[in-house]
Amino acid sequence: MDPMATFFKARTVAVIGAARETHKIGHVMFRNFLDSGFGGRVYPVNQKAKKILGRRCYPSVMDVPGRVDLAVVSVPAKAVRQVIQECGKKRVRSAIIITSGFGEIGNTAGEEEIRVELKRQGIRAIGVNCLGVFDPKTGVDTLFLPRHRLERPKPGHISFMSQSGAIGSIVLDWMAMKGYELSKFISYGNATDVDETDLLEFLARDRDTRVICMYLEGVKRGREFYRAAKRISKRKPIIVLKGGTTEEGTKAVSSHTGSLAGSDSIYNAVFEQAGIIRAGDLEQIFDFARMLSTQPKPRGDRVQVVTDGGGFGIMMTDWLVKNGLSMAKLSEKTVKTLKSKASAYTIIKNPMDLTGAATAGMYKLAIDACMRDRNVDMVVAIVLFQVPQLTSEVIEILTEANRKKSKPFVVVAAGGRYTETMKKKLEASGIPCFSYPERASQALNALREFAGG
Amino acid sequence: MDPMATFFKARTVAVIGAARETHKIGHVMFRNFLDSGFGGRVYPVNQKAKKILGRRCYPSVMDVPGRVDLAVVSVPAKAVRQVIQECGKKRVRSAIIITSGFGEIGNTAGEEEIRVELKRQGIRAIGVNCLGVFDPKTGVDTLFLPRHRLERPKPGHISFMSQSGAIGSIVLDWMAMKGYELSKFISYGNATDVDETDLLEFLARDRDTRVICMYLEGVKRGREFYRAAKRISKRKPIIVLKGGTTEEGTKAVSSHTGSLAGSDSIYNAVFEQAGIIRAGDLEQIFDFARMLSTQPKPRGDRVQVVTDGGGFGIMMTDWLVKNGLSMAKLSEKTVKTLKSKASAYTIIKNPMDLTGAATAGMYKLAIDACMRDRNVDMVVAIVLFQVPQLTSEVIEILTEANRKKSKPFVVVAAGGRYTETMKKKLEASGIPCFSYPERASQALNALREFAGG
Repeated sequence: MDPMATFFKARTVAVIGAARETHKIGHVMFRNFLDSGFGGRVYPVNQKAKKILGRRCYPSVMDVPGRVDLAVVSVPAKAVRQVIQECGKKRVRSAIIITSGFGEIGNTAGEEEIRVELKRQGIRAIGVNCLGVFDPKTGVDTLFLPRHRLERPKPGHISFMSQSGAIGSIVLDWMAMKGYELSKFISYGNATDVDETDLLEFLARDRDTRVICMYLEGVKRGREFYRAAKRISKRKPIIVLKGGTTEEGTKAVSSHTGSLAGSDSIYNAVFEQAGIIRAGDLEQIFDFARMLSTQPKPRGDRVQVVTDGGGFGIMMTDWLVKNGLSMAKLSEKTVKTLKSKASAYTIIKNPMDLTGAATAGMYKLAIDACMRDRNVDMVVAIVLFQVPQLTSEVIEILTEANRKKSKPFVVVAAGGRYTETMKKKLEASGIPCFSYPERASQALNALREFAGG
Repeated sequence: MDPMATFFKARTVAVIGAARETHKIGHVMFRNFLDSGFGGRVYPVNQKAKKILGRRCYPSVMDVPGRVDLAVVSVPAKAVRQVIQECGKKRVRSAIIITSGFGEIGNTAGEEEIRVELKRQGIRAIGVNCLGVFDPKTGVDTLFLPRHRLERPKPGHISFMSQSGAIGSIVLDWMAMKGYELSKFISYGNATDVDETDLLEFLARDRDTRVICMYLEGVKRGREFYRAAKRISKRKPIIVLKGGTTEEGTKAVSSHTGSLAGSDSIYNAVFEQAGIIRAGDLEQIFDFARMLSTQPKPRGDRVQVVTDGGGFGIMMTDWLVKNGLSMAKLSEKTVKTLKSKASAYTIIKNPMDLTGAATAGMYKLAIDACMRDRNVDMVVAIVLFQVPQLTSEVIEILTEANRKKSKPFVVVAAGGRYTETMKKKLEASGIPCFSYPERASQALNALREFAGG
């Protein structure tokens, strides 16, 4: 098997440094494998323990019976090298090294030793100083963060890789809460062996991944990364959030993972030429990813807005225009049809205002007309679910409008618990939902840019 | 009583246009008064009904026994004038007119008639075409949006007024969900009589209001508004979100409340001179309001960051600098103290990185040192609650750090449900919490600008 694929599809895993003490990293990690629905076999390795969570423990990976696909390593820094040698003897081909205490604290010599040893043993490794991987489909989960504190998302089509473990982990937690779905998660830390370019290439060929998302602080092999991105971005969207964009932030990077951050304007230029979509913050990565993984390419930049709140329509207009999109002008035919069928209160303009008297039927009439109109490239439905005459039937109407995938379609809905419940239903059916006009506009613009508009 | 105060403190209310049919506006509004813990008396007025929700109904406001402080009007547009005349006869001094169908649909003559009639009868009125008011302290609630769809926030010190009813209502709903607290809410629609300047003056003298927030599409009496804002902003922060900032958005305004939006750059200049803090989006209004209503004025712009996630520290640094703040440089004394007491892993810089091994005690040590250091004007604690050794004791430590109010203090914490639970506890104790570095930085900058830094 491809040693890169093994990180996610391993059938036998050795957790080297598994621990009995419940607060220890090695314990949480081992328990995750037991709790995660991992379908393969997992073996705890610990020189001192006989049993962990009722499972027989082995003093070395070499003592584990049968083949081992993947070693997950969380032993102290000074013991890592020997563990790698033992993995080599056991013919393990893939390792995830969680252990920290290398380049990030100035111990570059120690990290170089690890790199050399991995090469010598023919092992591909993610790490050091990382959280490792999580694949909700196979249940491989090397995160040492307990599930009651950090929830895991369900299987889907968005993959996310992060140099920073902290950022990676909160992204997972937040995706789970929002109901966003995940293909593969990788926290790769110092990139001692496997780096962003390797992971990019792997996710490009991974069929479950429709959109590749990254949090980067720096890039190890700049030229290779650029070439790979340029090739891949033509068929799969690559979305990047870059940390360390100011001089002060760059300084902070060097004391974090020890990588050089480089000038932000250089990154900007390179990203643009490579066809990489740049996100401005964490939330935006997923605003863009959900949009790009669910919606068709638009034919142009003309957006029609349908709303039941006038003020929201105005804010939406402002943000669409600020983000370089234009307001569609409905054809005479559409206006005529709507004038004959819509309620007297409906303001048939752009934004089309159904007012606080909006009903599910009025949304159907309006959205169907916009979807058919050749002057409209994308449709935004602002749905303030709070208005009294709007029944939950509107969910079916919106879902149906999206099902045809004839034009990009998004919903903007803001409010409290009732609204959030409604939005989760829409998200589950594949409609990107946003709370505020600003984020929806930016995501629509990202989609248009990816479409080459 | 001050007829402006009566809108919020009325003891006897007549709901004119109360209805039996549960989906009707007049019904929902009447029921809200019964459900809201309103301590006064409420009378339904309807020519045709004898009883509504078991309460005796009156054919006209003139038939209601005793004094009526406030009339809430939701009769059809053509009946509004007569209702005002009857209110005049009953010596009602304050009215909230929910009814739409005036200036916003081109019926300016009809609206002018209402204005003249209100003057003639000596009645101050909020509306027309509005949701009216909500005061969680007194229970006055004229919103026709049912509570199971739109929750109401608890009593607090932030007031919010909105020209747009839709925006006003979703803000309420969202505040309730987030646990943000409210002093007074006003949706004033077309501002036929009471306008933004009247409301601004009222909220300035209202003791329960510490921060005044507004969503504006236009201003009716520009000069008066400017003068009032300039005077008031010296002692109470005024935060404004302006709708209709692009040419297209401005066009949309005119078909919404029928008011002229004016050029955005003019508003920008006027707002700045008047000491008004301008918010970029709805969330930001409350980012700023929570900051300004809970935190002391900073002495300068130097921010110290304490974090348990390196990547988050970097993002925070970027955003602080982008927002015009500077990174504090700890005094030699502080560095020395921390070196002797902090764990070997702690990176004593700015950001100060406690790493994923952070404990509650480490946060206490670090934050206390920053609070004492004269080189530090504001402190940001990034707390990724997911890390395994961080116990809930940290909540007490953060709360204690904030209690002294010696320097502005905020918490940045991102994640899922567990994190949200922790953040709600912190918010309840008066610490502004943010999910992302960007928003925290913008809010710190707003605080510094209000302090005149």
